Amino acid sequence: MKKIAIILSGCGYKDGSETTEVISTLISVSRMGAEYQCFAPQIEFTATDHSTSEPGEARNTFAESARLCRGQIQPLEDLHSEEFDALILPGGFGAALHLCDWAAKGARATVLPAIEKTIQEFNQQDKPIGAMCIAPVLLAKVLGSKEITVTIGNDKETTQEIEKTGAIHEECKVDDFVTDRAHKIVTSPAYMYDEALPHLVAKGIDGLVKEVVEMA
Amino acid sequence: MKKIAIILSGCGYKDGSETTEVISTLISVSRMGAEYQCFAPQIEFTATDHSTSEPGEARNTFAESARLCRGQIQPLEDLHSEEFDALILPGGFGAALHLCDWAAKGARATVLPAIEKTIQEFNQQDKPIGAMCIAPVLLAKVLGSKEITVTIGNDKETTQEIEKTGAIHEECKVDDFVTDRAHKIVTSPAYMYDEALPHLVAKGIDGLVKEVVEMA
Repeated sequence: MKKIAIILSGCGYKDGSETTEVISTLISVSRMGAEYQCFAPQIEFTATDHSTSEPGEARNTFAESARLCRGQIQPLEDLHSEEFDALILPGGFGAALHLCDWAAKGARATVLPAIEKTIQEFNQQDKPIGAMCIAPVLLAKVLGSKEITVTIGNDKETTQEIEKTGAIHEECKVDDFVTDRAHKIVTSPAYMYDEALPHLVAKGIDGLVKEVVEMA
Repeated sequence: MKKIAIILSGCGYKDGSETTEVISTLISVSRMGAEYQCFAPQIEFTATDHSTSEPGEARNTFAESARLCRGQIQPLEDLHSEEFDALILPGGFGAALHLCDWAAKGARATVLPAIEKTIQEFNQQDKPIGAMCIAPVLLAKVLGSKEITVTIGNDKETTQEIEKTGAIHEECKVDDFVTDRAHKIVTSPAYMYDEALPHLVAKGIDGLVKEVVEMA
């Protein structure tokens, strides 16, 4: 049975992982007959109230991520790439806030060392990596110099920043995905289209997951 | 376009709405071409850390529920049954903790007045109601004297308590659902099977949502 590692960054699109993106990923991986394990870093952050957008109390990315996978979460430092066949990075603003500082710095962002190491290892071991929504910027930052192709949909500003890393951007509809077969990178825009319908987001992610699992 | 009201009780199965159940519902309603609006009560509660199961800080069901629907949440008191064609109640322990006190009292539970009123109104207006996981106990408490048929899977203790309300319990597999056509009640066990696979939970919920939307 193929094993997929999934990295979360909290619970909720304003300060963590996007909930529909994560759950769609879990459903699709499970439907493909593959196994998954979710991981998250231990980072303290100021929560954003999702009903008001106001800043709230201090929370932890690890404890919040556990809400999306029924508590079956492991610390990011326990993710050993040799134990998995593929890696998937869901989106949500947490990916650009906690896994790197792209939200503040764009192409000049620094990626969390454990995330950078994980992406490098899966890529060097010729294992597929899937990323959705804003998370492809992590792949651009780490693997951009290899001229990988990714999509984040059609957002101009993010596309320009991505291309500064050396990565190539390809436009993509919400219910579709882009495959860079040479580098085994699969990306889908998901909620980069803010007004997207849940079933179209789920369709794009289902395509991404199938491609990743089949390539694994 | 048919309009479906969905009532949430937080975010995460230990102290709120079960995340896979809610997101599966949103995806299925959207795929059916129906519209949805999520609602939640304003209840302060002690959060449960989903990575440790330890009690944590005070949170609010309304603000936490907003994490599951990209902030598009409305207060429960703004749910006017005449504006909707059907009602869906996802599960998670929040349904038995915040929407009633079934978790502590079983069949002797008291249902939150706004929830009782909403269930009564949809039923009186001959509009379908869907409920999953532990949430069918809310229907049993409010409509049990009408001898409605519901499922919560095959858990013996919960079944016995449900039957004390007058409701009839029918066993059901995780990927299936039970329809009481006379009362327009549709229920699916979802994560009452604790070890269920996400795609089987999603399949049962997809069947429930199709039935509810078609009956609406």
